[in-house]
Amino acid sequence: MTDHFASSRFVLPAIAAVADDALAARLQHLLDCKTKPLGSLGRLERLAVQIGLIQGRAAPQLVQPQLLVFAGDHGLAEQGVSAYPSDVTWQMVENFLAGGAAVSVLARQHDLALTVVDAGVRHTFEPRPGLQLRKIAAGTQDASSGPAMSVAQCEAALAAGGETVRERPGNAVLLGEMGIGNTSSASLLMARLCGLPIEDCVGRGTGLDDAGLAHKQAVLRRALQTNQAARAPLEVLAAFGGFEIAMMVGAALQAAHERRLIVVDGFITSAAMLVASVLAPSVLDYCVFAHRSGERGHGLLLQHLRAEPLLDLQMRLGEGSGGALAWPLIVSSLRLLDEMASFESAGVSERTAVV
Amino acid sequence: MTDHFASSRFVLPAIAAVADDALAARLQHLLDCKTKPLGSLGRLERLAVQIGLIQGRAAPQLVQPQLLVFAGDHGLAEQGVSAYPSDVTWQMVENFLAGGAAVSVLARQHDLALTVVDAGVRHTFEPRPGLQLRKIAAGTQDASSGPAMSVAQCEAALAAGGETVRERPGNAVLLGEMGIGNTSSASLLMARLCGLPIEDCVGRGTGLDDAGLAHKQAVLRRALQTNQAARAPLEVLAAFGGFEIAMMVGAALQAAHERRLIVVDGFITSAAMLVASVLAPSVLDYCVFAHRSGERGHGLLLQHLRAEPLLDLQMRLGEGSGGALAWPLIVSSLRLLDEMASFESAGVSERTAVV
Repeated sequence: MTDHFASSRFVLPAIAAVADDALAARLQHLLDCKTKPLGSLGRLERLAVQIGLIQGRAAPQLVQPQLLVFAGDHGLAEQGVSAYPSDVTWQMVENFLAGGAAVSVLARQHDLALTVVDAGVRHTFEPRPGLQLRKIAAGTQDASSGPAMSVAQCEAALAAGGETVRERPGNAVLLGEMGIGNTSSASLLMARLCGLPIEDCVGRGTGLDDAGLAHKQAVLRRALQTNQAARAPLEVLAAFGGFEIAMMVGAALQAAHERRLIVVDGFITSAAMLVASVLAPSVLDYCVFAHRSGERGHGLLLQHLRAEPLLDLQMRLGEGSGGALAWPLIVSSLRLLDEMASFESAGVSERTAVV
Repeated sequence: MTDHFASSRFVLPAIAAVADDALAARLQHLLDCKTKPLGSLGRLERLAVQIGLIQGRAAPQLVQPQLLVFAGDHGLAEQGVSAYPSDVTWQMVENFLAGGAAVSVLARQHDLALTVVDAGVRHTFEPRPGLQLRKIAAGTQDASSGPAMSVAQCEAALAAGGETVRERPGNAVLLGEMGIGNTSSASLLMARLCGLPIEDCVGRGTGLDDAGLAHKQAVLRRALQTNQAARAPLEVLAAFGGFEIAMMVGAALQAAHERRLIVVDGFITSAAMLVASVLAPSVLDYCVFAHRSGERGHGLLLQHLRAEPLLDLQMRLGEGSGGALAWPLIVSSLRLLDEMASFESAGVSERTAVV
């Protein structure tokens, strides 16, 4: 196994809890003075308050949002847990860079800077703009017969994810991923870290039929058994992989450390946030969950994270596509806070006294 | 009562059902060839197919979307059914035009051409760009003591709504409204046309407390009783109003006649679509329901209309704000259909044979 970055030591960055009652009250007061019935912007009001608290100011702004898509291959894919072959991982990386994938289209639509990170794809890419080469190894090991990666590799991946964020400008990151077999990793992480039966955590991924799903469940039960001893967060992450998930964990921790907004995509990205939250619970204060995906297990995982996703469009595509779709809603929440007139400024009458 | 337009006769425009199995299959095939798991764009795939069918082509495009906000006052508001005074209607029209309302902010964000229509506000506006003066009367009559408008006024409002659409460019209209007291109209229309108990159709509107809600229910029961005889669709619409709702009905019918996409906002706009669908069921083929609002009754109304709203953000603001928020999702559905690479064009491997 190649250990390009295995010498990097991962240091958990300090993450401040987002809690400032005075500022929260001030933000809510600003919203309450806007020309609209009290609370009538619903979820968008809570979103604007959250971003204000993250940025520690009553006039939050989003600048240079970065869409980071981490890609990696999975040894477990050899066990037939996906409807697609592993080669699709590198082929989709090429597709992201060529502009033909869903996330490429949505990033263009919403002016999101798209960076694809080779976290551990089983393929050698030519360097080019928009691609970061941070390969830990050419795919993880098969988690059904041992840990997917060493703890040293896991720490290297966490550190590399953090560096990816540190090097990029702006105050918001949208996280996404690509990796054939990575719904399996996400299910395993969820089952072990939430203490849930694997059946509640496993879905059809990219489109398994009933027999395929039963086979996937059996393989994942074996992986849990094989890695029975892995209980500490980093051991669990190392046991079940993948490199792209570990890098998302590192990216989220670094983003929260820098008080950036984190936009979380679907099932796999949420599983990465689960790992991050076990390491540093405050990381969730910085997260906006973009959508509830159609993948079985995601609803339950969101509940566990007490997340309130913005969209529910039965999507199950990954790549950061849900995050990109939710982006204009996030922008709207701040534009409404910033640009709406108040009752006073617009000369609109307030509520009549209660009858 | 002033009957400015009462001489206009309303003629129900012809509306073609949107049904072309061959085109639907072609659109779905195009989506299935895209570089993504089958069906993984979820709701957005059905949306792209719907818009393709509306436009009768496999490469649908949206051009010059028009956001039309119809405003009117309600005689019923005198009965204390709203938390705000009637003057807020004209004040908010001024706010829309000055750019300070939620819908103004969202229209700017998404490049939607905003037109405010005075359908029947109790106020005289100075003419200016962005405002259409189509006042039927200065507010409706009190529906708790008789019909809100005459059938002649109702037909005039339907015709005026249709004209508003006919005069605007583009192939998509987003409908919104403003009118203190108009959740009451919407609830009454819903109760009578769906045959539901009024209690299931009434909510807190802009923010009534428990006592206010009980009072609103009592007033609406009286309005139903008073207008017991109104059963034919236009009689029902005339009985319960308002002018802005009738104009939205006319606008939707005209838009569907011209095969434009109709983006429906919240509870009141949905009630207008209920009326339109009773007159011409095919109008629903042209509708995209933007969101499920927080107003009690809307969920049930959407079920009745078999609508599948795009957003559910507990908003209850009206104005077309939900439609404007959903607009980028609608754009995304077509951009994905248009711009995504196929497995073949991108050189991505297809599904492996089922194991």
